[in-house]
Amino acid sequence: MKDITIDFFEENPEDNRCDIMIEGLPGVGQVGKLVAEHLIEELGAEKVAEIQSVFFPPQVIIDETGVAHMPNNEIFRYSGKDLNILFLTGDFQSSSPEGHYLMTDAYLDIAEKYGVKRIYTLGGYGVGHLIDEIRVLAAVNSDTLKDEVEKAGAVFAKEEPGGGIIGASGLLLGLGVRREIEGICLMGETSGYLVDPKSSASVLEVLSKLTGIEVDPTKLVERADEMEVFVERLKAMDQQKSDEELSYIG
Amino acid sequence: MKDITIDFFEENPEDNRCDIMIEGLPGVGQVGKLVAEHLIEELGAEKVAEIQSVFFPPQVIIDETGVAHMPNNEIFRYSGKDLNILFLTGDFQSSSPEGHYLMTDAYLDIAEKYGVKRIYTLGGYGVGHLIDEIRVLAAVNSDTLKDEVEKAGAVFAKEEPGGGIIGASGLLLGLGVRREIEGICLMGETSGYLVDPKSSASVLEVLSKLTGIEVDPTKLVERADEMEVFVERLKAMDQQKSDEELSYIG
Amino acid sequence: MKDITIDFFEENPEDNRCDIMIEGLPGVGQVGKLVAEHLIEELGAEKVAEIQSVFFPPQVIIDETGVAHMPNNEIFRYSGKDLNILFLTGDFQSSSPEGHYLMTDAYLDIAEKYGVKRIYTLGGYGVGHLIDEIRVLAAVNSDTLKDEVEKAGAVFAKEEPGGGIIGASGLLLGLGVRREIEGICLMGETSGYLVDPKSSASVLEVLSKLTGIEVDPTKLVERADEMEVFVERLKAMDQQKSDEELSYIG
Amino acid sequence: MKDITIDFFEENPEDNRCDIMIEGLPGVGQVGKLVAEHLIEELGAEKVAEIQSVFFPPQVIIDETGVAHMPNNEIFRYSGKDLNILFLTGDFQSSSPEGHYLMTDAYLDIAEKYGVKRIYTLGGYGVGHLIDEIRVLAAVNSDTLKDEVEKAGAVFAKEEPGGGIIGASGLLLGLGVRREIEGICLMGETSGYLVDPKSSASVLEVLSKLTGIEVDPTKLVERADEMEVFVERLKAMDQQKSDEELSYIG
Repeated sequence: MKDITIDFFEENPEDNRCDIMIEGLPGVGQVGKLVAEHLIEELGAEKVAEIQSVFFPPQVIIDETGVAHMPNNEIFRYSGKDLNILFLTGDFQSSSPEGHYLMTDAYLDIAEKYGVKRIYTLGGYGVGHLIDEIRVLAAVNSDTLKDEVEKAGAVFAKEEPGGGIIGASGLLLGLGVRREIEGICLMGETSGYLVDPKSSASVLEVLSKLTGIEVDPTKLVERADEMEVFVERLKAMDQQKSDEELSYIG
Repeated sequence: MKDITIDFFEENPEDNRCDIMIEGLPGVGQVGKLVAEHLIEELGAEKVAEIQSVFFPPQVIIDETGVAHMPNNEIFRYSGKDLNILFLTGDFQSSSPEGHYLMTDAYLDIAEKYGVKRIYTLGGYGVGHLIDEIRVLAAVNSDTLKDEVEKAGAVFAKEEPGGGIIGASGLLLGLGVRREIEGICLMGETSGYLVDPKSSASVLEVLSKLTGIEVDPTKLVERADEMEVFVERLKAMDQQKSDEELSYIG
Repeated sequence: MKDITIDFFEENPEDNRCDIMIEGLPGVGQVGKLVAEHLIEELGAEKVAEIQSVFFPPQVIIDETGVAHMPNNEIFRYSGKDLNILFLTGDFQSSSPEGHYLMTDAYLDIAEKYGVKRIYTLGGYGVGHLIDEIRVLAAVNSDTLKDEVEKAGAVFAKEEPGGGIIGASGLLLGLGVRREIEGICLMGETSGYLVDPKSSASVLEVLSKLTGIEVDPTKLVERADEMEVFVERLKAMDQQKSDEELSYIG
Repeated sequence: MKDITIDFFEENPEDNRCDIMIEGLPGVGQVGKLVAEHLIEELGAEKVAEIQSVFFPPQVIIDETGVAHMPNNEIFRYSGKDLNILFLTGDFQSSSPEGHYLMTDAYLDIAEKYGVKRIYTLGGYGVGHLIDEIRVLAAVNSDTLKDEVEKAGAVFAKEEPGGGIIGASGLLLGLGVRREIEGICLMGETSGYLVDPKSSASVLEVLSKLTGIEVDPTKLVERADEMEVFVERLKAMDQQKSDEELSYIG
């Protein structure tokens, strides 16, 4: 069993060149994941690969019909008129520090295979209280990218995001440098308590200006509600897990 | 020293074809382990393999006569008139996330060696309070299995088991897909506080309908009492362990 | 850098056959370590090997003159009239579960190299309160050893040591089986709060009857006092470590 | 992806012989890091290598302009009239125990490549309260070094540093022995609460006497203030991280 397994659902993926990758894995307020899933559904992107790993939590996920599937991160591909896009979203980030590095490396292998030259990583920036005016904070992996990002409405705030970005959203930028892949991280301010469609709408707006992708944001709220149900079910499972650890042998 | 060591006690295990595997490793309320051990003893199944691993907690287990043995998971085999069965039970689940994946992979290697086409994984679903009517919750790794499971009396509850199943009971389903092994998980509701023979009886009832195996459930209560003594001894050991960690050097 | 490094200080160690190994690594009340170090000094055993490992805590130990040395476990050898003995003692047990398995495997490699046929593992059994009559609890890895151990004054108590023995003292017994090395674990009851020379004296008494080794126990108290000073210094270091973790970057 | 990646920025580094290495990685009160960075800037040392690793925390660091870079430890080189010096400083220590060993081994590989014969490791010794007279505590990896160190004003205190030194500052001494590299650790007493320029000044004074390097200490206070801002930003990020862990899936 390999530490990370990637299954491609299309032959010769390297023949389907993509310009950019958009990452929206789970995180604060599910802001990034919500934007990525919204785009995938609105654009009708197609699933082209699945990623499984021993670095995920050791569990299966049960869908609402009772069918179990392995935790997956997924790659979707969309061919537009002006832009071909790879999406990275899924169930989990790595559950170990080293796994974060190795999985990000695998994501970059996929990006390179498709010829991606720029990655947008999307996330939330938790502020711990409700917000009226949602700012979209940004970080880049080359200062040549700053102008473009600021013009699209994102903010480089001197004291935020506090010195670092944890997980895939950060490491894709950092490890991308060595592969000459541009990286832009967009973080929507969020209370962090619930799946946050308003923060996602703000991130989507900046992303649209940067990429030219235009989609109707209406269904973000609906999708956030569905996601919230799922998140609540997973929290219940975590409670179950704690019980289980109390009785791990018999 | 290998990470996982499997010792077979029969030659050419691949010649002893089995139709199904029944897994009952330690977990909430010891529900699955109790059912598996009950079946093994009532049917007179024979031990055919032992599994040791560095992914187990770093300790030996002392039996009541003072003899130490390594933590083992064990494979038993039973040849019935209509059905040949492999049982998986034992002392521990993995103590690390990655170990859960690698050990489940090893369990599936064993299942494949014996030609197993379907795995039943058994466990408890902790609800944190006493229950009058015990439901048996189910999950499957293919929706073609649902009808059969529901007819046997198990329930696919939309909001339970909360989105996931942790450990071998879940991963056997998930990782079984790739090997084309059907997987059905049966979880008896339990308070989770004590070894629970009532929950086990409910799971056994559903399992009997699904497999045609019929055994007298009378001794479940007696076996639960014995298991409870062992569980209490292990809790005492955990207390000892905590003391030990406070003085790990001298 | 290897995970475990063993340096021998004598050529052809396999030519210096030993009958038994006595293990006294750090643990509850330092009971085992104190017995082992006492025997090493009273008998004048000679250091023949050092073991270093990445599984130890990531630190050096500073002696009272200010000189740093790597954490070591050590092998001493003593050639008596009737009995040749290998001692295993040292600074630490493994800091990770898997490391416990791999280091115990390395200890057994050393034992086999010297032809050891039996291992005594020594430790404390913490009861959490002061004790008048100290019992020495025992476990063995073959029931053929029980008579001999009981005659020497140790007790096989049905409910103690609570179902398991954690760390090298347990795993040497468990993993020794596969190599056909007899294993006897002797655990002196102790409050567990301080280095406990009384508990060590009780263990030593049983061990003397089992092995025929006779040493004057007088200096056990003195050695316990010295060890206590060292233990206190290490506790102070742990406090320092906690502070350090609060400021791991700058 | 390798566990540890070292990029050299000069060709044939082994041709640029250095006499000593000075290590100042993050730690209590940032005392060591502050001294190392101060020396690097005052002497105008040149960056000659960067070290990245999966053993670092899984994140990028955002500078104040919004540009992300991977966590780096860095090697600087200074060629003086009488002394050629290698400096080791950077963003993090290892986040896992085994990583501490493997990274220290990599640092020593670099030191050997440059022909280094002696390493000074610098750090703080947290006492938990404000101090009037700051002592510089010392440890060495050979007692032949003690006289020299005491003459320079450092103290070998019998009960401090409490029996051990954790992390690279300790392991460089311990693992250096096998490579015949002398090791001297200097620890300035500090409250441990803030970046501490006074403690750093005391360490610098002893180091200057030992090495003959003389630099103006005036800017230590200014640099400490800058470092404190960065430390505070990272603390804010840690808070963010805690929030993130509460919502790792969606």
